[in-house]
Amino acid sequence: MPANPQNVIANLKELHALTGDDRGAQRVAFTPMWTKAREWFVSKLKELPVEHHFDAAGNSWVTLAGVSARSLVLGSHLDSVPNGGWLDGCLGVLTALEVFRAFAEDYNGRPPVTIRVVDWADEEGARFGRSLFGSSAFAGTHSIAADRSRTDREGITLEDALRACQIDMDKIGNASVEREHLAAYLELHIEQGPVLERMGLPLAAVTGTKGVERHSIVFHGQEAHSGSTPMSDRRDALAAAARLALEIRSIAGKHSDSVCTMGSVKTFPGIVTAVVGRCETTLDQRDLDAEVLAAMYREAQEASHRFAAQEGCTVDWSKIWSIEPIPFHPHLIDLCEEAIREVAPRSHRMPSGPLHDAAEVARLGVPTVMMFVQSLKGISHNKIEDTRIEDLMLAVDAFHRLAAKTMQWIEAQ
Amino acid sequence: MPANPQNVIANLKELHALTGDDRGAQRVAFTPMWTKAREWFVSKLKELPVEHHFDAAGNSWVTLAGVSARSLVLGSHLDSVPNGGWLDGCLGVLTALEVFRAFAEDYNGRPPVTIRVVDWADEEGARFGRSLFGSSAFAGTHSIAADRSRTDREGITLEDALRACQIDMDKIGNASVEREHLAAYLELHIEQGPVLERMGLPLAAVTGTKGVERHSIVFHGQEAHSGSTPMSDRRDALAAAARLALEIRSIAGKHSDSVCTMGSVKTFPGIVTAVVGRCETTLDQRDLDAEVLAAMYREAQEASHRFAAQEGCTVDWSKIWSIEPIPFHPHLIDLCEEAIREVAPRSHRMPSGPLHDAAEVARLGVPTVMMFVQSLKGISHNKIEDTRIEDLMLAVDAFHRLAAKTMQWIEAQ
Repeated sequence: MPANPQNVIANLKELHALTGDDRGAQRVAFTPMWTKAREWFVSKLKELPVEHHFDAAGNSWVTLAGVSARSLVLGSHLDSVPNGGWLDGCLGVLTALEVFRAFAEDYNGRPPVTIRVVDWADEEGARFGRSLFGSSAFAGTHSIAADRSRTDREGITLEDALRACQIDMDKIGNASVEREHLAAYLELHIEQGPVLERMGLPLAAVTGTKGVERHSIVFHGQEAHSGSTPMSDRRDALAAAARLALEIRSIAGKHSDSVCTMGSVKTFPGIVTAVVGRCETTLDQRDLDAEVLAAMYREAQEASHRFAAQEGCTVDWSKIWSIEPIPFHPHLIDLCEEAIREVAPRSHRMPSGPLHDAAEVARLGVPTVMMFVQSLKGISHNKIEDTRIEDLMLAVDAFHRLAAKTMQWIEAQ
Repeated sequence: MPANPQNVIANLKELHALTGDDRGAQRVAFTPMWTKAREWFVSKLKELPVEHHFDAAGNSWVTLAGVSARSLVLGSHLDSVPNGGWLDGCLGVLTALEVFRAFAEDYNGRPPVTIRVVDWADEEGARFGRSLFGSSAFAGTHSIAADRSRTDREGITLEDALRACQIDMDKIGNASVEREHLAAYLELHIEQGPVLERMGLPLAAVTGTKGVERHSIVFHGQEAHSGSTPMSDRRDALAAAARLALEIRSIAGKHSDSVCTMGSVKTFPGIVTAVVGRCETTLDQRDLDAEVLAAMYREAQEASHRFAAQEGCTVDWSKIWSIEPIPFHPHLIDLCEEAIREVAPRSHRMPSGPLHDAAEVARLGVPTVMMFVQSLKGISHNKIEDTRIEDLMLAVDAFHRLAAKTMQWIEAQ
């Protein structure tokens, strides 16, 4: 019997009523509201023939043992940013739960392969700035030494916040035991961008997550009095930064799916009567092709040095973070498109700009694919984040079909 | 007998030792350190045959009565910005004091015209953001209603700070009584810019103060996820602002002495992973010619609307402050050049980009001129502000000569 989309929508609304307020969802990881959301989720498992436990990194695993120990994992995350939307992350977890329920019913509690649902811990990194916490621990790409110094706004360390959730920071790598028998991973997520809405499509098969080069770029010029310093005597750090802010569009424009973003500009001294002596900027560059990403990074560096020199400034780069592009599994992408075409007139393939827990799983070489459902206005991380109910219903149906196809594919191997 | 530059330099050093620290001068107006500086100044008058009083706005006046009641006023300000330099403002006051002392000696306490020294209250506006406080009260261009709501960082109102200095805010306009018999006003100041150093000249006659148009310009676009929003779907408020930051150089470049400065840029949400949805900037434009200034203001407005439209953004302008250009007195500018040429091989004429108390006096129609002495590296409002000792000595000599010539001119009228 098909998964029932109405169950998913009812659960989404119930969860939002329980853990949101008039500013949006408030399920920030490692806070009481998040714990409440996860307890509510576990309560939903009561009548299912399943095993549930939290792993060493706080990921929440539900298992329906199958004839084969080889497992199909469906997952996403219940945590949200502060003042978040009602779909980001929890749509994937609650759809996974409904598909899981449907399989349990269809196979009378004993499907041909083992089915698991995972709610990854702290995908968003909203409180400590460390996104993909649980999935990276699972994947062995965690960074305990670097993360030990992380604190939230109140000065509470990540380590202490973990301990309050019964997670021992030194042992989070033990989450890797959950990899055993893992045969495929599937994740449904809202697009969080405007592409599908613009194309008038409900769903897309995701080809992978783009690699990211994220840097801090600081231009150093000379602070000077706005009234007494002739234009020709200036070493205006803002001018150099402004030129780069415009140039990154040409750099991204050379490639069809590339994006480059200057998201933050800070001026010092930053007063109306002074030429900017120091300008601190950030640059975020993404592409699915590692060579394209490397070229964009190199081009931005060259441009920044050229502009700095032209403006009598210097420039310093420092890496904030980077990750390589992570392509998803070709056959699972095909299956995803098949599933979409069974519920919608057309499918579409697109890379994901945002990162997802699926990227951490795919890095391990586990066959992985994601399905996107259209976001209205491309907005997420905001209480106005939304998707048409009819599109959510199509998404649940298509994701169930994808899971069934993947299960057959695992069985046939 | 000539004024003795060594007295001025000794006094500057004494004042700095008394009211500065290792971060620079700390004579912020309406603070105890400023009061201390002013008491020290009054103590320097002890052996002179003079009258001293504070007017209703806290300006400090020293008077040496002459044969004629018509007065020549020499002035500047003792207040500084926080962490300021050792010359800004106090060079003018202490040079005025030395010239005053020389005249008192030369004329045996009874010069042909009355000579006065004024130390204007709060030229910098460093604590409450209201510069030219005392001289504008004197000139009748004060703004009591608007200034009543001003507070410092600790929330103390300007009105309360004035009261603590025995100044009644409602009565500051009574400082206008000091205008009586005022025949001419002279002010010596450091250039605070790089022009004279670049030209290899110690001194300049100032032709007037540039008019200023100072505005807040806010671009509104659409906040969007840096990973999921294709370049072509963006409404990037930073891009519109960056184009304006570069365009203002062309706008200023059409005119030889014009300056345009974008001093502050703030990005919202201002995070590495979001396209800028709102960008708040400031624009400061200056020229000595009112028509040029008006044209530059209009050109910047037009450019901002054009860029906003091209980027899918909107833009709002709001005035922060403006003042018209204030030309100095043609004959006094000639006398200033004569005086400079008696001590240096060449003179130079230039407008002042920074405002000065002299502008408030000149607005009244009082014959006014300023003399600039070279600033090293064009730096002021900073503890490294400096001028060569030999240039300071030339400045005192030339300013004395200018005062003598001006006195003769007043006498001859």
